[in-house]
Amino acid sequence: MSVEADIRPGEVAVPLPGRGDAEVFFIGRIRTPWPDRKSCPKHGDPVAGPVCRIEVFEPWTAALAGIEANAEIDVLYWMHSARRDIVRQQPRSAGTTFGAFAIRSPVRPNPIAASRVAFLGLDRGVLLVRGLDCIDGTPLIDLKPLSCPAARSTT
Amino acid sequence: MSVEADIRPGEVAVPLPGRGDAEVFFIGRIRTPWPDRKSCPKHGDPVAGPVCRIEVFEPWTAALAGIEANAEIDVLYWMHSARRDIVRQQPRSAGTTFGAFAIRSPVRPNPIAASRVAFLGLDRGVLLVRGLDCIDGTPLIDLKPLSCPAARSTT
Repeated sequence: MSVEADIRPGEVAVPLPGRGDAEVFFIGRIRTPWPDRKSCPKHGDPVAGPVCRIEVFEPWTAALAGIEANAEIDVLYWMHSARRDIVRQQPRSAGTTFGAFAIRSPVRPNPIAASRVAFLGLDRGVLLVRGLDCIDGTPLIDLKPLSCPAARSTT
Repeated sequence: MSVEADIRPGEVAVPLPGRGDAEVFFIGRIRTPWPDRKSCPKHGDPVAGPVCRIEVFEPWTAALAGIEANAEIDVLYWMHSARRDIVRQQPRSAGTTFGAFAIRSPVRPNPIAASRVAFLGLDRGVLLVRGLDCIDGTPLIDLKPLSCPAARSTT
């Protein structure tokens, strides 16, 4: 795992547990125009942001059946370049520190991000979406509709 | 891992990868009134639902600093009782099957749930919240504010 940032004054790091408690599968790969964290936008824009591709790997493409019914989906991904041990952080623009759970920094015990995106299309296991802000090549871990199909058919 | 459901007609299971790609830390434990999946409500209710407790383990409690500024937070947890291999599923109330990514079933390749809850209070590493719908003892994996502190101070 690469380490992107050193500790700033006032930040606090803790020793990580020796082993994890559960295993995540990388079920796909996110393709964006941004090769590194510095070039990523601060927030994704589901209206004016660029179209990004989400490539779903086998054997998981069968799980996409019916996803086209959604105008928006939640994308969960693994921020593989972020360190996990800084519990108290000083965001670049802030003059003070915050706990990792009080900010949406990629640096957190489990580097999982959740982004709500506009769904534009699906072609053979590849989704086209708008609204991401992550590094090109970021591992995908989940796709979720905002509600269940039963709720959609009645509202 | 316990298996909660058998395959229904039309459902499709796939072989799971031999190993995971990344490790999750269980950083706390969620306490709710519901001992099993059958007794859980279908959706959490941030207004009228019961108050639930989120116990954050050491060394992660330092990451809570500043979380009290949020009226709502997103809670990510690991649905440890759910099987992960059914890519096409038939929800109990539906007459047809859906891909796992088209529904919010706990059965998905990475059994991660995201719930938006009302934040009520924090006392020595324990959060009081309203709006969860998970089994008592569910492992916690992340807590996120809806926006960063800078955005909150300007809107």
